[in-house]
Amino acid sequence: MATPVKLYGPPLSTAVSRVLACLLEKDVQFQLTPINLSKGEQKKPEFLKMQPFGQVPAFEDENISLFESRAICRYICEKYPEKGNKGLYGTNPLAKASIDQWLEAEGQTFNPPSSVLVFQLAFAPLMKLKQDETLIRQNEAKLSKVLDVYEKRLGESRFLAGDEFSLADLSHLPNAHYLVTATHRGEIFTSRKNVGRWWDEISSRDSWKKVADMQKSV
Amino acid sequence: MATPVKLYGPPLSTAVSRVLACLLEKDVQFQLTPINLSKGEQKKPEFLKMQPFGQVPAFEDENISLFESRAICRYICEKYPEKGNKGLYGTNPLAKASIDQWLEAEGQTFNPPSSVLVFQLAFAPLMKLKQDETLIRQNEAKLSKVLDVYEKRLGESRFLAGDEFSLADLSHLPNAHYLVTATHRGEIFTSRKNVGRWWDEISSRDSWKKVADMQKSV
Repeated sequence: MATPVKLYGPPLSTAVSRVLACLLEKDVQFQLTPINLSKGEQKKPEFLKMQPFGQVPAFEDENISLFESRAICRYICEKYPEKGNKGLYGTNPLAKASIDQWLEAEGQTFNPPSSVLVFQLAFAPLMKLKQDETLIRQNEAKLSKVLDVYEKRLGESRFLAGDEFSLADLSHLPNAHYLVTATHRGEIFTSRKNVGRWWDEISSRDSWKKVADMQKSV
Repeated sequence: MATPVKLYGPPLSTAVSRVLACLLEKDVQFQLTPINLSKGEQKKPEFLKMQPFGQVPAFEDENISLFESRAICRYICEKYPEKGNKGLYGTNPLAKASIDQWLEAEGQTFNPPSSVLVFQLAFAPLMKLKQDETLIRQNEAKLSKVLDVYEKRLGESRFLAGDEFSLADLSHLPNAHYLVTATHRGEIFTSRKNVGRWWDEISSRDSWKKVADMQKSV
């Protein structure tokens, strides 16, 4: 590959770290440009040309500019099928459909409550914002129900979409990482036998360990 | 095709109608089994085998069972590339990446506020539930900001992902349809020049008109 792909955003962002994990799994060379959210760099006209909603990440490769972390991950897997982890987005239509299903479950069902908890429990204290206890309670209850379904699924299957680690598992890493390592509520994952086993396995992959190191060194 | 694909869920559900619109665009034969949500049929053990979260729709085709409406739509387009609207999910990797990007924008950015408004404004009165005015106000403001971005995008491009109608546009139909036709807040779409033009065009497709008829005849 002549030119590395370009990723814009801070590694501390869950959406940015999702794409970083994918790039590292796929062994695709990249150049990371941190965007300073506290200075509002994501709302500047130049950035809005790449990401019209003013959020991170944005991504560029040759003749395309993209936003939305899960769409960027799909693109990386489709564009570089022969690089790194070749099975990350499946190697046949049935495997891919199962990965898409659990990737959507992550985006639609796991992400909403878990991202509220990440913000309330991990970020609000750092930003000296008051935590909303009602919101925390409501979203813990929602996430618990989601993880009960995962517990059953992961009792039947090593990973969410089947026997192999995939984009569907990877997509859970950013939020789960904050909840397990930066809050006192990590038990919501680790107290569940199968979810805990799955979490240990996916979070100890080299790709994710590198992302976690990038987050620490910021 | 020997056997029609099977879709489970009521056409009145936004997620079910998303898949119906896709099946009709793709001209894929299907058999619809309505699931009675008020009787809790989506929580019965037999249904939970197909959809472990107890939500609609569920979908079956030959050797696969799937849930999550956007994942089902992707599967239908990938499995039946030569049927019906061949460009619905793009015919080259760049077009597909752009469709994925706007399909994710729909799922992550448009859907959260619009689905709260659909529930509060269209369903709550039918179910004789009290409307939450604060929630309505907050989500109208959020949706307005999202549609401001769409307004700009649709000033540059006929459809969200480019010059052709795609899965990204289609995925907006269910929520937008309820807001425009079943509430007094349809102006949030129709008062915006480009969004209004886009809404007129996508909602008058034969596929969506058939879905709307199916909803009326329930």
